[in-house]
Amino acid sequence: MSKYGFVAVPIDSEAHLNGKKHINPPTAQHVDSLAIPTSEVAKKIQEYAKEELPLPTYNHSMRVFLYGLAIARDQFPDWNISPEVYFATCLLHDIGATPKNIEATKLSFEFYGGIIARDLVLEVTDSDQDFADAVCEAIIRHQDLGTVGNITRLGFLLQLTTILDNVGKNTGLIHHDTILAVNAAYPRHDWLKCFAHVIDSEYAHKPWAHTTALGVEQFKGDVLSNQVKYD
Amino acid sequence: MSKYGFVAVPIDSEAHLNGKKHINPPTAQHVDSLAIPTSEVAKKIQEYAKEELPLPTYNHSMRVFLYGLAIARDQFPDWNISPEVYFATCLLHDIGATPKNIEATKLSFEFYGGIIARDLVLEVTDSDQDFADAVCEAIIRHQDLGTVGNITRLGFLLQLTTILDNVGKNTGLIHHDTILAVNAAYPRHDWLKCFAHVIDSEYAHKPWAHTTALGVEQFKGDVLSNQVKYD
Repeated sequence: MSKYGFVAVPIDSEAHLNGKKHINPPTAQHVDSLAIPTSEVAKKIQEYAKEELPLPTYNHSMRVFLYGLAIARDQFPDWNISPEVYFATCLLHDIGATPKNIEATKLSFEFYGGIIARDLVLEVTDSDQDFADAVCEAIIRHQDLGTVGNITRLGFLLQLTTILDNVGKNTGLIHHDTILAVNAAYPRHDWLKCFAHVIDSEYAHKPWAHTTALGVEQFKGDVLSNQVKYD
Repeated sequence: MSKYGFVAVPIDSEAHLNGKKHINPPTAQHVDSLAIPTSEVAKKIQEYAKEELPLPTYNHSMRVFLYGLAIARDQFPDWNISPEVYFATCLLHDIGATPKNIEATKLSFEFYGGIIARDLVLEVTDSDQDFADAVCEAIIRHQDLGTVGNITRLGFLLQLTTILDNVGKNTGLIHHDTILAVNAAYPRHDWLKCFAHVIDSEYAHKPWAHTTALGVEQFKGDVLSNQVKYD
């Protein structure tokens, strides 16, 4: 089950680090070495994401994928998560937050996104349920930033990398040259402001949503005050 | 949207209480006054729950429904949640934790339960999406016991009442005679041990599951050391 990331790890990133900035020193990685999956399944999901996601969100999702490959290679070399599974997870993690989908349901965006992603993966994989459930579980929990208990490896990697791109945490796990290369390949298009707008939009439509557990003003403030130099 | 509970309230129960045990003094309520919905939709969901849930879980779900009616009547008289919607939510909130469903997926039980419940409600209501999404959102978050941010009224009531039956909190919101009457109508059948076993079983199958965010040993301890006299 390790290819789907169904192995429990502590959700608290500090527990992995023993007070250090990284487990292994991060290496500068060329974008060409972070290969995008080219299977039929991967292509179908990528096509879907390209059509459904606004460009800034699509590029954010691609950055999160590439960061994750680089971090897994350096920090968790024995994890063996399938790049195709991580690719699907990253490309679909914000699918519930498109303008269309925010209005399509009163569900919190991570929950609706998890359901959409599960259905899509079941469809394009001819019902590979472990694949679909792995992606769904990780998407539902990608803003569940606790410090108690466990999460799947897949979900943990998605949390690490979305926070890296949104809030500027976990930069010790990845070489700064890799961050620059990934951002050159998939430009930010003022991503932090876009994302802050998404937070506002969900809150306006659904003031009960799960994102509020992060503290809406606090979380938006963390995003907008992110000082990392990505490009 | 208030009939579906789609109104945001603070998830922190203390925020509703201003340091008191209740908002209004709880009244002793006869089980007969806590009417079980008899619509076709309610009957179909009740039949489904009766067939799928082990008896101790079915009775727990019925108690949670009756506690909620009593609490809403005394503490939140202006909430106007549809009893049918709350009934469906209660009867299905642990559907992901049956022995069959724990083994059917690697998803956390609340997430799988939310998906099953959403599909079932869509089916029996001829696609009332707000109803289905309300139930799904509440079930996914029913163990999301934070203190920051908001939740739907429906989800809040489900949290209050499941914790009341499992951990013995929130007893100030309900008259003790009502607790006794509800437990006489739907006996506990050693529910605390049953539920502790469910926690263990999910952890054995899925050590990454969302329940671990409550601290598995801590939560199980809180359940097993519940001293409330229910019957």
